Amino acid sequence: MKRRDIVLGLGATTLLTACGQSQAPGIATSKTQRFEWKMVTTWPKNFPGLGSAAEYLANAIGEMSGGRLTIRVYGAGERVPALETFDAVSRGAAEMGHGAAYYWKGKSPAAPFFTAIPFGLTAQEMNGWLYFGGGLELWRELYDGFNLVPFEAGNTGTQMGGWFRDPINSLADLKGVKMRIPGLGGEVMKKIGVTTVNIPGGELFTALQTGTIDATEWVGPYNDLAFGLHKAAKNYYYPGWQEPGPTLEAIVNKDAWNTLPEDLQAIVSYACQATGSQMLAEYAARNQQALQTLVNEHGVKLQAFPDDVMAALREASDEVLEELIANDAFSRKVYDSYEAYRMRVEQSTRIMEQAYLNSRELP
Amino acid sequence: MKRRDIVLGLGATTLLTACGQSQAPGIATSKTQRFEWKMVTTWPKNFPGLGSAAEYLANAIGEMSGGRLTIRVYGAGERVPALETFDAVSRGAAEMGHGAAYYWKGKSPAAPFFTAIPFGLTAQEMNGWLYFGGGLELWRELYDGFNLVPFEAGNTGTQMGGWFRDPINSLADLKGVKMRIPGLGGEVMKKIGVTTVNIPGGELFTALQTGTIDATEWVGPYNDLAFGLHKAAKNYYYPGWQEPGPTLEAIVNKDAWNTLPEDLQAIVSYACQATGSQMLAEYAARNQQALQTLVNEHGVKLQAFPDDVMAALREASDEVLEELIANDAFSRKVYDSYEAYRMRVEQSTRIMEQAYLNSRELP
Repeated sequence: MKRRDIVLGLGATTLLTACGQSQAPGIATSKTQRFEWKMVTTWPKNFPGLGSAAEYLANAIGEMSGGRLTIRVYGAGERVPALETFDAVSRGAAEMGHGAAYYWKGKSPAAPFFTAIPFGLTAQEMNGWLYFGGGLELWRELYDGFNLVPFEAGNTGTQMGGWFRDPINSLADLKGVKMRIPGLGGEVMKKIGVTTVNIPGGELFTALQTGTIDATEWVGPYNDLAFGLHKAAKNYYYPGWQEPGPTLEAIVNKDAWNTLPEDLQAIVSYACQATGSQMLAEYAARNQQALQTLVNEHGVKLQAFPDDVMAALREASDEVLEELIANDAFSRKVYDSYEAYRMRVEQSTRIMEQAYLNSRELP
Repeated sequence: MKRRDIVLGLGATTLLTACGQSQAPGIATSKTQRFEWKMVTTWPKNFPGLGSAAEYLANAIGEMSGGRLTIRVYGAGERVPALETFDAVSRGAAEMGHGAAYYWKGKSPAAPFFTAIPFGLTAQEMNGWLYFGGGLELWRELYDGFNLVPFEAGNTGTQMGGWFRDPINSLADLKGVKMRIPGLGGEVMKKIGVTTVNIPGGELFTALQTGTIDATEWVGPYNDLAFGLHKAAKNYYYPGWQEPGPTLEAIVNKDAWNTLPEDLQAIVSYACQATGSQMLAEYAARNQQALQTLVNEHGVKLQAFPDDVMAALREASDEVLEELIANDAFSRKVYDSYEAYRMRVEQSTRIMEQAYLNSRELP
């Protein structure tokens, strides 16, 4: 267990309060001082939605600070490889990073709770937990042990279940299917008989087209269309049970954070929150356009996973989560907070947003 | 038709671009200049969720600007009555306002599209239209005729259908029911036989308890619990078809806007967007808590409107919208943009968020 039990001085549930608290005493905070930061990311430079959120964040900070804090964004591999983002910011090789917490499961089994877990919270529910349910405090407690301050800074909204070369008519059809699905979703799929592999995004199309894999999940219509996955498989499955509302993170090296005057700390915090909203809006608008194109121009067949598949996935998800937190007290603490909130918020979502959405389906 | 056909120089779909464009030439923009603004609002001071969003916005701007732009928030009636917010900011009696566009239907029939319309967009869908679907451009075009610059600055998420003293088992049970439901929702209800009245929020509880009215809608569990409506009626209906994702607005007097240097304009813009996310998070978290209290401690009976009621409401909603836009070319233009987007986004929401939410219901 690598988490160290240091509590950050940032234990507030709202950005508002969080911003003004961690001013390190004795550090120069002149309003004329200029800061030039590097932001390393887990995305290809300007990758639609994901990379563009990082750019939006950097631009927002630059504009609001009038150039006092400028941030240069590096795509994955430009400065450090995607999956070294966390370590690079932790040791100060870059002041800031943009990515997703579930990439750092090797650092702590609790990390995925701050992005998405199978059958977990949607984007809006997740923000409720982070900002008003204690989630952000737990996240900051965890990352403090790595010299990092995390922020919510993006969300794709609910993703899609994935592309399958052959239709899945029942649970039996999934046995032996070779699917690219990383993370906890992959562990769940493995439990119900799927052979899971991890393949970098750039190789997905060819792997699916040549039959090296039978299926893959990626993101949703907006990103999947850009990758051309519809040319390699026609069966497009929903829902995206594995990532119902994945949160992206901005991480800031704590020493760098402490050198910022309070107004620039506030700018970074609120810019992250604005980026979260902007990215959800982008996905809402771009997904609907891409879906039209996929269905109307490329003959993609939209299909729901059969009920027995969904039931098996959910049961397996519970097992995977239990195993995840089994040997780590902090992960258990995060799980307890998340689960208590999830069970209650599902009830309010059910009679509010969900009931409304379903009412649009009435004849 | 009061809208004047002046196109604002702010015709960008993203905040990012919008921020830097309207710098009036020749106006002093020193970074040492301090601005003290008044924000009038349509909410009681610090009213949970609504008034607190206005405070969050003002605080965000104050913190990020390091005190260069400070905003004093006035509750409804403190400086001007709630429904004079628009005019007060338009003529410069206050530099800024916080409210909701649908209160200004008397100024333009198009106004409600920028808050919520019956059977319209959810919060996430709405933000997609505003930021990436041309909605914000249309909104700015409309308000430019009133010397105002509007921003998205809050959303309650999907509301509830309302409180009824007697259960509604079919459409027939609604005939003659006396209900407080303002705006377009009220016009729709009227078409299906409900007698609608408008009563200020503060008098709702007594009116419902004494039987002056038989039913009322307000917001959702968080605000309704605070008002004690469950003590006057036990039948709590969903879904909130009349306000599926109402957007709140911040409005800025255009002359005041043009005196701000670019960095402060950016701070106002992004602070509004951050407030939108914060408010949705607050409602997600607080609604789930309040719902538990209502059901478990106060014996409130959650009920879905019967299908025949929902069908009649939807049909009547279409009629109300047609009448709304019938005699106003700009409203027709807004409607066309909104409707084209709505029909497509309903399809992507259906297979993404909605399908996921429904999968949580499987046994």
